[in-house]
Amino acid sequence: MTDHLNSAILLIHCPDQRGIVRAVTDFIFRHGGNVTALDQYVDPEQGMFFMRVAWSLDQFDLEREDIDAAFADALGREMQMEWSLEFTDHVQRMALFVSQHSHCFYDILARYETGEWRVEIPLVISNHETLRPAVERLGIDFHCLPVNKENKAQQEQKQLELLQHYGVDFVVLARYMQILSEDFVSAWPHKVINIHHSFLPAFAGARPYHAAYERGVKIIGATSHYVTADLDAGPIIEQDVVRVSHEHSIDDLVRKGRDLEKIVLARAIWQHLQHRVLAYRNRTIVF
Amino acid sequence: MTDHLNSAILLIHCPDQRGIVRAVTDFIFRHGGNVTALDQYVDPEQGMFFMRVAWSLDQFDLEREDIDAAFADALGREMQMEWSLEFTDHVQRMALFVSQHSHCFYDILARYETGEWRVEIPLVISNHETLRPAVERLGIDFHCLPVNKENKAQQEQKQLELLQHYGVDFVVLARYMQILSEDFVSAWPHKVINIHHSFLPAFAGARPYHAAYERGVKIIGATSHYVTADLDAGPIIEQDVVRVSHEHSIDDLVRKGRDLEKIVLARAIWQHLQHRVLAYRNRTIVF
Amino acid sequence: MTDHLNSAILLIHCPDQRGIVRAVTDFIFRHGGNVTALDQYVDPEQGMFFMRVAWSLDQFDLEREDIDAAFADALGREMQMEWSLEFTDHVQRMALFVSQHSHCFYDILARYETGEWRVEIPLVISNHETLRPAVERLGIDFHCLPVNKENKAQQEQKQLELLQHYGVDFVVLARYMQILSEDFVSAWPHKVINIHHSFLPAFAGARPYHAAYERGVKIIGATSHYVTADLDAGPIIEQDVVRVSHEHSIDDLVRKGRDLEKIVLARAIWQHLQHRVLAYRNRTIVF
Amino acid sequence: MTDHLNSAILLIHCPDQRGIVRAVTDFIFRHGGNVTALDQYVDPEQGMFFMRVAWSLDQFDLEREDIDAAFADALGREMQMEWSLEFTDHVQRMALFVSQHSHCFYDILARYETGEWRVEIPLVISNHETLRPAVERLGIDFHCLPVNKENKAQQEQKQLELLQHYGVDFVVLARYMQILSEDFVSAWPHKVINIHHSFLPAFAGARPYHAAYERGVKIIGATSHYVTADLDAGPIIEQDVVRVSHEHSIDDLVRKGRDLEKIVLARAIWQHLQHRVLAYRNRTIVF
Repeated sequence: MTDHLNSAILLIHCPDQRGIVRAVTDFIFRHGGNVTALDQYVDPEQGMFFMRVAWSLDQFDLEREDIDAAFADALGREMQMEWSLEFTDHVQRMALFVSQHSHCFYDILARYETGEWRVEIPLVISNHETLRPAVERLGIDFHCLPVNKENKAQQEQKQLELLQHYGVDFVVLARYMQILSEDFVSAWPHKVINIHHSFLPAFAGARPYHAAYERGVKIIGATSHYVTADLDAGPIIEQDVVRVSHEHSIDDLVRKGRDLEKIVLARAIWQHLQHRVLAYRNRTIVF
Repeated sequence: MTDHLNSAILLIHCPDQRGIVRAVTDFIFRHGGNVTALDQYVDPEQGMFFMRVAWSLDQFDLEREDIDAAFADALGREMQMEWSLEFTDHVQRMALFVSQHSHCFYDILARYETGEWRVEIPLVISNHETLRPAVERLGIDFHCLPVNKENKAQQEQKQLELLQHYGVDFVVLARYMQILSEDFVSAWPHKVINIHHSFLPAFAGARPYHAAYERGVKIIGATSHYVTADLDAGPIIEQDVVRVSHEHSIDDLVRKGRDLEKIVLARAIWQHLQHRVLAYRNRTIVF
Repeated sequence: MTDHLNSAILLIHCPDQRGIVRAVTDFIFRHGGNVTALDQYVDPEQGMFFMRVAWSLDQFDLEREDIDAAFADALGREMQMEWSLEFTDHVQRMALFVSQHSHCFYDILARYETGEWRVEIPLVISNHETLRPAVERLGIDFHCLPVNKENKAQQEQKQLELLQHYGVDFVVLARYMQILSEDFVSAWPHKVINIHHSFLPAFAGARPYHAAYERGVKIIGATSHYVTADLDAGPIIEQDVVRVSHEHSIDDLVRKGRDLEKIVLARAIWQHLQHRVLAYRNRTIVF
Repeated sequence: MTDHLNSAILLIHCPDQRGIVRAVTDFIFRHGGNVTALDQYVDPEQGMFFMRVAWSLDQFDLEREDIDAAFADALGREMQMEWSLEFTDHVQRMALFVSQHSHCFYDILARYETGEWRVEIPLVISNHETLRPAVERLGIDFHCLPVNKENKAQQEQKQLELLQHYGVDFVVLARYMQILSEDFVSAWPHKVINIHHSFLPAFAGARPYHAAYERGVKIIGATSHYVTADLDAGPIIEQDVVRVSHEHSIDDLVRKGRDLEKIVLARAIWQHLQHRVLAYRNRTIVF
């Protein structure tokens, strides 16, 4: 499910109409591209068409910087498409926001250190100094920006500047424990991935494991989603669950949940890195 | 995990204190019983002790009708225990409440017909005539009691009389689609098992699959619980889930959910039949 | 995931080459079809391309009986394709082979009775009389063909004649407990669906729950696959699992396994009915 | 499910007989202990009784070093028990054996660094130098002992000496990729935990992901077990699985499997650390 290097990926959506796949694949074919992966989905409720197509650029006759315009001219404009064009050899730059719950952080770091993902982590932002040594050891910049009610707007401004300065492509909140303002979120639409420690929409908000314990559920979950202005209500990328029983104390739920959270978050990041996630309104199409 | 015939089962709870297991097993031992299964759980938050113990009556020297009093005298009263005493050779009588969604109904009927469970189904109550032939074919009485706002109190009164008349031990709402009144529910505490077609507490109330679709969850669930006056909030016996994706329409969720519902409900009934479920406040201990 | 009525479905495979999706969608487009679902997969190891495409026939300008030839002329022959063409309004005819383990049988019957699937069951074949009443009650023909070493070839001959006589499209072995001969299997390639009561390839052959118990596994499974001459080694359509523990006796494994088997088999049948399964060598592509 | 500090734990097995739980709890009660957890299981096939009991030592009137003898005198000898006595405040010492597949290693290290487990890791043994820096950074000793056919016996001798020198309680093979000799294994019975990258007994031996891909399974798994002389056949502690499809290449299976392996191994280690695992013949009772 990993696309070859030197490939292009188009993520498209538009009103459903006759001939879309044909038009897209015809465009690629006529310019010498070889389709290596193609997924499409029609949402019958909304009358919308969604597509992800990857093709090899080896014998493609358009320059990379000309593809967007050529695609618009050939069919994009006429078919009222919105799309994003990605190249598989671009190494994406991911910023990590962390706090003191470090299990997701360490899990991501190990994947980074072992080269599991094609990704660059230029900086980690935290509201605590705790994880600085672990970050700097890998040659990653660490910025400690403690946030409180008074300075939140200023600190977020600094965060946004840092993201720009470091040329970041997307942000991962690895149990960051702070709520981002609407301004921040709208500046990075579908570019901020969060992990929530419950099976959303159950137990949104604070202390989900306590709430799960109180309710006596037999299964707990974790949810990774894009952050929107509406807390814990953004489009869900990935969820998973694990069984629990009456024997599990809140501490046990927290312990079991940690493993769930880190795996669910890692899967969401992987899907995002592969350009497999297309968020539309409040749902995701994960190709 | 099935107890032998000619066994007794005690389900006990009491304030936690030193020596409970010893006292219970000593009582059984002194009267010639042989413990075949024993589970206990201490809830540290509530300071409560819970226990399920099964023993063979083969060489037990108390008559069945004397056990309760002897247990009370020996330790029950002193240790402030509440308990229920069950005998494994008693064939429990289960009433089914159904409506028109028949998948749980047919699943239970097949288990009944093939003798999978040790249970008697003397009657089925429905607010529709639809399933009468399937019920009567197996020699089970079928009572159609259509419920509307005006006659609800009267119809429930008839239902309660039927349950008494048929000597019913517990009730299963197999997608009955009607809300039982507080009066009904309090007359049958922890004796009415419902199946809700969502992963509670997410999507309580009506049309959970529609709500799940709208929210864009990646996993759907089903929950079996004892019915309490608080709708969809009773103690959970069993839950399970299945993965879905953007490709699944609401109809697909309903289709996948049907299989989940019938299996989750069947597991809950099985646990209940084995006297493995101890409900305390709003949680269950499922031994 | 259910295709509209009055649609056509093509299941295609061929050597991978440039322009396949374009060629197929162009063919459909030029004849007035509207693609409603499209999935494709390239097996890089084998250099093979696989595709499932569904389109509405509402404004398609070819007669149904002319599509195959037109497709062959337009691209099928040149691209060395093999394909099958299906129509969603054709109600497929499924034969059930059963024995005495009836849980899968009853589960399928309930789906049939409630119209869950678009399918016709014209006949049930068994080597025991046991289930005759349940079958005939629904107006389905029941044929009892007891099989032993001596008469196996003859009885299979009768079975094959019955399948032909009833115009059967595919066969489901719902815990039939008999091994079909190579002759039978090769007459119905990828048209006989079996359910095996283990997580294949673990515990192939007889008494898998006993073997699972002996091995002390913590999870048991069930596997639905197309039957090939090589016992329990045919292409897998669907698998699922459930947790067990040391507390579960063999009887418990059998009990839990029954629920797994019937759900896994039902899912495989559903996928097959939707023409979503493409078997190639010993693997399936399940679109 | 974590026992309090200053508690004792007994893991017992013996021939099944009347009055065992009573005798054990009576012993604890008479010496002033308060039972905080008790699990028992009777294997009806083997006629064996298994038990795990934990009790607080706060008011226990026996010295720790006298418990074994007192227990033997009071009931252990007479009831033909075998048992092990553990104390929850003893910090167990775990040796890690690693190679070059580092995902399990990093996962364990993160748990160690964050204090998730009550455990000491005094040394890591590897046949490669690769992970030395990551180990030594945490103040853990690293010993590189490359193994080949010729030096295997000598190197294992050194390993055994190191384990003794460092006072190790148990060994974890975190994808060590070497087969331990029968001599080594028998010196550490039920004290060496391995992670195998398949759902055993399916795909035992080398290259399980390749084999899983070839077989076309729809689910892959990982298995943690105690190492015995019989390769991949030791008593299973924990297993888990994840869904895959035709779209997943062998590389995808490896990628998804890594997450499975590290979680399954971590769960097994946690159970072992809690003294919840009792291996008997080739099965485990995991209380």
